[in-house]
Amino acid sequence: MQLTQSEATRRAAQAQQILDGKTKPLGALGQLETLGVQLCVIQNTLTPSIDPVRALIFGADHGVAAEGVSLFPAEVTAQMMANFASGGAAICVLTRSFGVQCEVLDVGVNADLSGLAGIVHAKVARGSGNLRRSPALTPEHLVQAMGVGAQAAVRAFKSGIKTLVLGEMGIGNTTSAAALICAYTGASPSEVVGAGTGVSGAALALKTTVVAEALTRTAKSGNAKPAAREILAELGGLEIAALAGAMIEAHTLGLIVLVDGFIVTAAALAACQIEPATRANLVFAHRSAERGHSIALGALNATPLLDLGLRLGEGSGAALAVPLVRAAAAIINDMASFADAGVSNVDAGVPHGQS
Amino acid sequence: MQLTQSEATRRAAQAQQILDGKTKPLGALGQLETLGVQLCVIQNTLTPSIDPVRALIFGADHGVAAEGVSLFPAEVTAQMMANFASGGAAICVLTRSFGVQCEVLDVGVNADLSGLAGIVHAKVARGSGNLRRSPALTPEHLVQAMGVGAQAAVRAFKSGIKTLVLGEMGIGNTTSAAALICAYTGASPSEVVGAGTGVSGAALALKTTVVAEALTRTAKSGNAKPAAREILAELGGLEIAALAGAMIEAHTLGLIVLVDGFIVTAAALAACQIEPATRANLVFAHRSAERGHSIALGALNATPLLDLGLRLGEGSGAALAVPLVRAAAAIINDMASFADAGVSNVDAGVPHGQS
Repeated sequence: MQLTQSEATRRAAQAQQILDGKTKPLGALGQLETLGVQLCVIQNTLTPSIDPVRALIFGADHGVAAEGVSLFPAEVTAQMMANFASGGAAICVLTRSFGVQCEVLDVGVNADLSGLAGIVHAKVARGSGNLRRSPALTPEHLVQAMGVGAQAAVRAFKSGIKTLVLGEMGIGNTTSAAALICAYTGASPSEVVGAGTGVSGAALALKTTVVAEALTRTAKSGNAKPAAREILAELGGLEIAALAGAMIEAHTLGLIVLVDGFIVTAAALAACQIEPATRANLVFAHRSAERGHSIALGALNATPLLDLGLRLGEGSGAALAVPLVRAAAAIINDMASFADAGVSNVDAGVPHGQS
Repeated sequence: MQLTQSEATRRAAQAQQILDGKTKPLGALGQLETLGVQLCVIQNTLTPSIDPVRALIFGADHGVAAEGVSLFPAEVTAQMMANFASGGAAICVLTRSFGVQCEVLDVGVNADLSGLAGIVHAKVARGSGNLRRSPALTPEHLVQAMGVGAQAAVRAFKSGIKTLVLGEMGIGNTTSAAALICAYTGASPSEVVGAGTGVSGAALALKTTVVAEALTRTAKSGNAKPAAREILAELGGLEIAALAGAMIEAHTLGLIVLVDGFIVTAAALAACQIEPATRANLVFAHRSAERGHSIALGALNATPLLDLGLRLGEGSGAALAVPLVRAAAAIINDMASFADAGVSNVDAGVPHGQS
C-alpha cells in the first residue's frame, strides 16, 4: 500500500471531487472532509472502510520514575494492567462503548504478570533504564520493543483489522515523552514538560530538571545530532518504542492509525523521523491538555479532531475519535450527490470553502 | 424534573465525587467529566442513560430568501426534505451510522409536501415573512410553530427517548439566525453575519444590510427592548420557533438536548430568554465555522464539544457529538474506582486538575 506522491495526490483529488458532489455546500463538512480524503489515500480507494477497529495498549515501566517525576507510585503500572485485563479502565469502557476490540500488551512492566489472563505477554525487559543517568533502552531492547509493536500490527492486519487505536500505560512516561519531543523538535524542557498525572510546584521543577539533564547527557555523546533511532533508545521507553514500531508497520500494511495524546504523539515523532512515509497513515485524534503536546503536533503538521482537555493516555482520546472516522467514511460511501437526489446545486464556479 | 438550584448543586457534587474516585488522575477526562456531571443533573441521577436518541429536523422556508441572501435557490428546502425522506442527506447518514432515530418535520416549507412519505406533516404556513420588510411570523404562527416543536418533544418522551438531537433545514435561515443573535446579544450585524451556504463579497454585504435593516425596523416599533417572544416573531423562522419550543418542552420533560450549530444556537438563545431554566438541559455539540456562532455560544456561556469547521446544519454537528455523550455516561456508569480495581491512589489532598 505504498502510493507514490503523484498517485496519492490523484486519489485525494478524486475523493474531494466525490465530496464536492454531495448534497451540501462546498466544504461544509470541514475537517470531516479532510479526514475522508486521507482515509481514501491510506486505503487507496474511493470507498473507505474503517471496521473492525482494534486498540493496542502497550504497557511498560520507566526507570526514571525513581526520580519522583510522577504523582503515582510505579506499582500503578502493573495495577493498571490488571485493571485493563478486567475491563475496568477508561479505555476498556470506551472501546466497549464504541464496538472496538482491545488488546493489551505487556512490553516491559516491572512485575511478573505471567499469571494475568487476557493480555499479550511480550515483555522485553522489566522497565527501561533511568534516562536522567543512562540510556533508557539498549540497542537490543529497542529492536525487540519495536518488533513487539510491529508484530501486533501484523497480527491485527491478518485478523482483518482496518484501523488501529494506539494507547499506552507507564508511570513516568510523560517524562520520557517530553524528553523525546525536546530532542526531536528542538523545543526546550521548560516549554514541553507538563503536569503528567498532576505534578506541580517543586515536583514539576524536578521533572523539568530531569529532562534537561537527560538532553545534556545525550548531547554529550557526540557533536553530530544523534540519529532518530538513537534518540529513541536514549530517551524512550519500551512501550513508546513498541508504538513507533506499530506505526511504521501499519503504514506498510495500509492500516489507519489513530494517534492518542502526548505519549503516542512522541512515538509518532520518532516513527516519522525513522520512516517519514509513516505520517500518511496517522490520524491525530485529540489535543491533550498536557502542555507540550501542541509543540509535538505542530512539528508533525497535525490538526487533531478533538480538543476536550483530556490528559489520561491509555488511548482514551484515540478511542473517542473512532466515531468521527466512521462518520467521515460513511459520508463518502453513503451520502447522496446532487444528481442522485435531484437537488439544485449552485454554479460550478463557486470557490471552495467560506470567504 | 425541575431541580432547585441547591438540589442541582448537590447532585453535581455527588457526580463529580464518583468521577474523582475512578482509576485516573483527577480531572484527566476533561470536558467528558463536565459533561457527565451535567447529564447526572439533567436526569437527576448518578447513573445517566442516553439511549434511545432521536434527531428532530425541522424544515421551513424564509421570505427573506427573496432578497438573494443564499447561494442556493429557495426550492432547495423542499428538495432537501425529499433527500431527508429518502435517507440521502448528511444527517441521515450520520444518524444511521450512530444508531440514532431521525424524525423530519415540515413546519413551514413553501411547497406542497403532503405526498412525501416518511416525514411528519406539521406545516404552520408556507414559509415566513420577509424579515427585512415585515415581521417574519404572526403571533399565531409563532405559537403554532413553538407548539410543533413542543409536541415533537412530548412524542419523543412518550416513546422513551432520553436524548434529542436538534437540527434544521431552511434556505435563508442563517440570515434569520444572524438577526436573532444580534437582537438577543446586542452584537452588530457586521460581527455576526457570515457566509452561510457560501456567500461572499457583494452578496455577503447585502446579507449584512438585510440584517441591519431588519434590526432597525424592529427597534423602531417602540422604545423599550422587545420581549424575547416578540424578537423571535419579528426575526425568526417557523423551524427556529419550533426548535425553541422543543427545547423549552425538553427541559420540562428532563430530556438531554444536543444543540447543533449557528441556527439551533440562535433558537437556544430565544428559548433561554423565554424560559431561562431551559439552559440546564442543553449540551452544545460543536463550534460552527459560521462566524457569528462564537458570539451566540459566548452569550450562553457554552463550551461546545467539537470544533471541526462544520457549517452544514441539519443537526449534523449535534449528531457527531452523540458518541461523546454516550462515552461520558459510560465513564460514570462502567469505569472502575480505585477501590474496585485495587489501584493505588494519590493522597486525597492533591488539587483538582493540572497546575
